[in-house]
Amino acid sequence: MSGDANGGSDHFGDALIARVRELGHPLCVGLDPHLDRIPPPFRAGTMAPAAPATADAVEAFCRAVVDRVAGRVAAVKPQVAFFEQLGWPGMRALERVVAHARGAGLLVVLDAKRGDIGSTAAGYAQAYLAADAPLAVDAMTLNPYLGLESLAPFAQAAQQCGRGFFVLAKTSNPGSGELQDLEVGGVPIYERVAASLAPLAGRLAGPATGWSSLGIVAGATWPAQHEALRARLPRALFLVPGYGAQGASADDALRGFVSGPKGLEGGLVSSSRALLFPPDGEGGDRARWEASLDEALARSTAELAQAVARSGAR
Amino acid sequence: MSGDANGGSDHFGDALIARVRELGHPLCVGLDPHLDRIPPPFRAGTMAPAAPATADAVEAFCRAVVDRVAGRVAAVKPQVAFFEQLGWPGMRALERVVAHARGAGLLVVLDAKRGDIGSTAAGYAQAYLAADAPLAVDAMTLNPYLGLESLAPFAQAAQQCGRGFFVLAKTSNPGSGELQDLEVGGVPIYERVAASLAPLAGRLAGPATGWSSLGIVAGATWPAQHEALRARLPRALFLVPGYGAQGASADDALRGFVSGPKGLEGGLVSSSRALLFPPDGEGGDRARWEASLDEALARSTAELAQAVARSGAR
Repeated sequence: MSGDANGGSDHFGDALIARVRELGHPLCVGLDPHLDRIPPPFRAGTMAPAAPATADAVEAFCRAVVDRVAGRVAAVKPQVAFFEQLGWPGMRALERVVAHARGAGLLVVLDAKRGDIGSTAAGYAQAYLAADAPLAVDAMTLNPYLGLESLAPFAQAAQQCGRGFFVLAKTSNPGSGELQDLEVGGVPIYERVAASLAPLAGRLAGPATGWSSLGIVAGATWPAQHEALRARLPRALFLVPGYGAQGASADDALRGFVSGPKGLEGGLVSSSRALLFPPDGEGGDRARWEASLDEALARSTAELAQAVARSGAR
Repeated sequence: MSGDANGGSDHFGDALIARVRELGHPLCVGLDPHLDRIPPPFRAGTMAPAAPATADAVEAFCRAVVDRVAGRVAAVKPQVAFFEQLGWPGMRALERVVAHARGAGLLVVLDAKRGDIGSTAAGYAQAYLAADAPLAVDAMTLNPYLGLESLAPFAQAAQQCGRGFFVLAKTSNPGSGELQDLEVGGVPIYERVAASLAPLAGRLAGPATGWSSLGIVAGATWPAQHEALRARLPRALFLVPGYGAQGASADDALRGFVSGPKGLEGGLVSSSRALLFPPDGEGGDRARWEASLDEALARSTAELAQAVARSGAR
């Protein structure tokens, strides 16, 4: 992990929590470069996925976002699919965007939702979390369907290189309950996944804050479920997508957070579309888009900072 | 889908079954280029994942495998993680290997195990299954944890471009049962996943054979479970990993297959290490490795062809 991004800590959980306390809010900016919504100043031709110029345009757009948000949020979360759909030039653009973000002092959480077994899982850990990973990030998201053994190489990277990872528990989509809410012995699957992670979360606890480098993904759209998840994992990080465009409020998003020295803490709350594509920032020139993004970012961080500070009332 | 690979069919299920009937066996060669096992004639330097020459070596090795197996098996199954761990040069190598395999008349099933929602799922479908996908394959593997809605863009690609996809049901790893075997109302999760796919499998049935372009992954290491899965999905393809190096026999691997005009049929049986890295093919020169691969391939196809033909005895 680069010293720039985490202030010299070699533990993802500690680094993340320290940065969030400093900023006073847990906002994470999702880098979801939807091809059809990238603002005119960055567009190239028809933005066809297979056109090489499209990857360049996506890279320029994401770099511009990084430049606006650096120093104002703890982390960015690139969604791999938006880069992967452009073929290898998209993966090259992602590598450059990630390096740029880490160089600017941001933690990078790669939203990859990978999940595989044995040497294949080790391949994904090598790709993104190893000390010599070609596309090194600070943390990534993982899918638990193949069982706990599939997490082993990622846990090793957490211990050896200070990385982190977030396992899908309860995702933000309307249909997430289809499998995740099924109850086994009265306990829903998402809660069982969380419970099964508890021992590993403990082993990956940070020396400075006690927060683990292991986290879960818990959609902001399901706040009622966050308390049960937190009870199973008292010091695991929550990565909370769905705040903003997907309709969840700041208080909803923080439902699983707990009191800390600077208010509520315990993870990251992610917003993407509402920041990258602000309603009044489309169609205009670059300065107009930048001003709209700045304004949307200020609104979101203020809203979250207020919700964080309300912790005393709990 | 290229006319070369599927004989002009625009339906993945029909194309796959036609080719398997022609060959008399369902062997699929897994392209799992383990860096530490690639034979000497193909190696480049230390084979460090971040070294650009490593991706070239992996590409040369996989092309050589494709050249040996073309015309003798219906499909190859590249495991994305082994390419992804090399960064974007690895993804470029994968793109070239896939194009080479399809040009040689092989169907390509990408083992990617992707799973995401909404526009992100659409991004993965665009990456691999769309008509203008930069890295177009015939089918790919998907993870069901996020629910059926996550499959929509892949189903659309199946209908519009003749592609296919395989959803993880019961994976071959020892710890797969941790989540997949949990019982809800007396029915294990893997079987529930299969049941939930039945309506979509029916909608994607092929006009020529009745076999669907929707399949599931069912590990050869769990043969007893295949019959329950087949009962839920009478005409879905099974992608069966774990044959060979993982210890399952040909009869185990075919447990979910059913009688057809040419013996047992119903999907693909995948083998990788036993073919790519035959015990007597390591350390030697290229001709020696080729002869060992040929021999291992002949043994596997003969064993599977015999098991296919024993269908009359059921």
